[in-house]
Amino acid sequence: MEAENKQVIFKGFIEGTPKETDLQVMAGISIKLKAPKGSGAFLVKNLYLSCDPYMRGRMRDFRDSYLPPFVPGKPLEGFGVSQVVDSDNPSFKPGDLISGITGWEEYSLIRRTEQLRKIKQDDIPLSFHLGLLGMPGFTAYAGFNEVCSPKKGEYVLVSAASGAVGQLVGQLAKLLGCHVVGSSGSSQKVDLLRNKLGFDDAFNYKEEPDLDAALKRYFPQGIDIYFDNVGGEMLDAALLNMRIHGRIAVCGMVSEKNLSDPGGIHNLYNLITKRIRMQGFLQSDYLHLYPRFLEDVISLYKQGKIVYVEDMNEGLESAPSAFVGLFSGRNIGKQVIRVARYE
Amino acid sequence: MEAENKQVIFKGFIEGTPKETDLQVMAGISIKLKAPKGSGAFLVKNLYLSCDPYMRGRMRDFRDSYLPPFVPGKPLEGFGVSQVVDSDNPSFKPGDLISGITGWEEYSLIRRTEQLRKIKQDDIPLSFHLGLLGMPGFTAYAGFNEVCSPKKGEYVLVSAASGAVGQLVGQLAKLLGCHVVGSSGSSQKVDLLRNKLGFDDAFNYKEEPDLDAALKRYFPQGIDIYFDNVGGEMLDAALLNMRIHGRIAVCGMVSEKNLSDPGGIHNLYNLITKRIRMQGFLQSDYLHLYPRFLEDVISLYKQGKIVYVEDMNEGLESAPSAFVGLFSGRNIGKQVIRVARYE
Repeated sequence: MEAENKQVIFKGFIEGTPKETDLQVMAGISIKLKAPKGSGAFLVKNLYLSCDPYMRGRMRDFRDSYLPPFVPGKPLEGFGVSQVVDSDNPSFKPGDLISGITGWEEYSLIRRTEQLRKIKQDDIPLSFHLGLLGMPGFTAYAGFNEVCSPKKGEYVLVSAASGAVGQLVGQLAKLLGCHVVGSSGSSQKVDLLRNKLGFDDAFNYKEEPDLDAALKRYFPQGIDIYFDNVGGEMLDAALLNMRIHGRIAVCGMVSEKNLSDPGGIHNLYNLITKRIRMQGFLQSDYLHLYPRFLEDVISLYKQGKIVYVEDMNEGLESAPSAFVGLFSGRNIGKQVIRVARYE
Repeated sequence: MEAENKQVIFKGFIEGTPKETDLQVMAGISIKLKAPKGSGAFLVKNLYLSCDPYMRGRMRDFRDSYLPPFVPGKPLEGFGVSQVVDSDNPSFKPGDLISGITGWEEYSLIRRTEQLRKIKQDDIPLSFHLGLLGMPGFTAYAGFNEVCSPKKGEYVLVSAASGAVGQLVGQLAKLLGCHVVGSSGSSQKVDLLRNKLGFDDAFNYKEEPDLDAALKRYFPQGIDIYFDNVGGEMLDAALLNMRIHGRIAVCGMVSEKNLSDPGGIHNLYNLITKRIRMQGFLQSDYLHLYPRFLEDVISLYKQGKIVYVEDMNEGLESAPSAFVGLFSGRNIGKQVIRVARYE
């Protein structure tokens, strides 16, 4: 059994913001739909692929990171939801649904199974295993609960608030009884935050000439927790508006990843005067909490207490556009690519 | 009984680095050596005054800080060691030695007693109550033990390492079994760190054209703990050299206090990739630990396990020069002014 295996090729290391031309959709490659005997590997059909900002870091030729760079000339890699087609591994059987790192292509041969999860299918959309129940959702859960030390009644700012991580942070904060304001980059997203995701308020940072003044308007009492998904100017403005013993969870710095010389953060002296704890984290340090996370979030979702917004692109051909859109904020909600429908 | 009461007057709010001309030594004022009846106050003779970088913050007209600004036309205030001359407060008797906030003058009338400590005199120099046993020493103790979460064998960088705080941080780290390297601003200080204060190594940052390269040389394995007394470029270089799960205690930002537009910190993305906790603190949040601190540090000092270096200026006339010297790093060790000898 052979099939065509369309791929999204990483053309080479880049500087600055990713462009669609940094990736190339290659058709006409064929693949044997068999896992080689004795390999312990298994062959999957990819159903959904996840577009995540951290992937930008793998597009640089920098080997000292927590993740190795992508290989030029090879397909991108990322989180996906896939179905096993053929297997030389007794733990994974044809038909099994899995979530984990896979290739940006129609079919992938999976050799490393350490971080794969088998999906127990129920009435939750399969693609949610890339967002709400996947790495971004877990990032929100671990970052908010374990890094922010949140307490009922506290004032919480979330940036990139309608994104894959931010939307869950805000909802978890609301469920705890916090006052939550989200920052995002369009009026449509602001509307989503206010009316669908249940934030107390939201604003479009692009319409705020003075972020410090904006934060003073939305947080006259100051900010206890800033869940920082962007870095840069918003971080500097938040530092000016933190309350005493505030906490900043440093989750992503989308605004800085693309710049070789970002403007720099100028207001760190507030860390001292306000005794702020600012902490970077990676969800991978908290994987022991993953089972509890799944249980909690699935339960909340099934009770209708949380919702999750996805931006779904159709087909591998749309992958370069979907990925690049992350960095201009074009996506609304978690960006996913549907490679194939689950049958 | 009247006496002359020489004073060091704060002339007015300043921008930039303090200059000697921002202060004025005023002679010819006289004071009654009596505490007014019914005032609950007491009159002290000031013996030693402490020069501390935080005082720069009180020279700005900024009322939103954790400390109020100095009053133009009035004497500076700061930590001092004083002796009670006359008292209307039954808890403080003539002859008592106290340590706490007093005026930069020969005699002060003290009304607020909340943060005063009575000094039990023993064989420790009285002036040490401004440094080793005072606010700077306690800053080192609380910051290192409570903020840095230090463990035996860890790699520790201390900036402004021969200063009032840094010299104790380094010695506490050595006593715990850490590898400690200090940064300071002259070869004389480097010598002090290496040969008197027991640091494993030390360097003169002014002779290092590339701080990142310097840190890579002194910490080929990376830095677990950075006790940051300076901010600025050293902080940016340290961020590049932190180890995974490193900790940065943000204690002072001498290099930033004087600048209206510091260059900015550019390497905060390391907080994420290395999961660093960066925490500002003030010693005043940890005052419940003060009794234990005194007991611990006095014991260590009496056993000869720690030493403490002071830079002593003689006479109130030298106060402007002593204070200003802090900001050019002219002092070697804790800067103190002797106003009068204890008799």
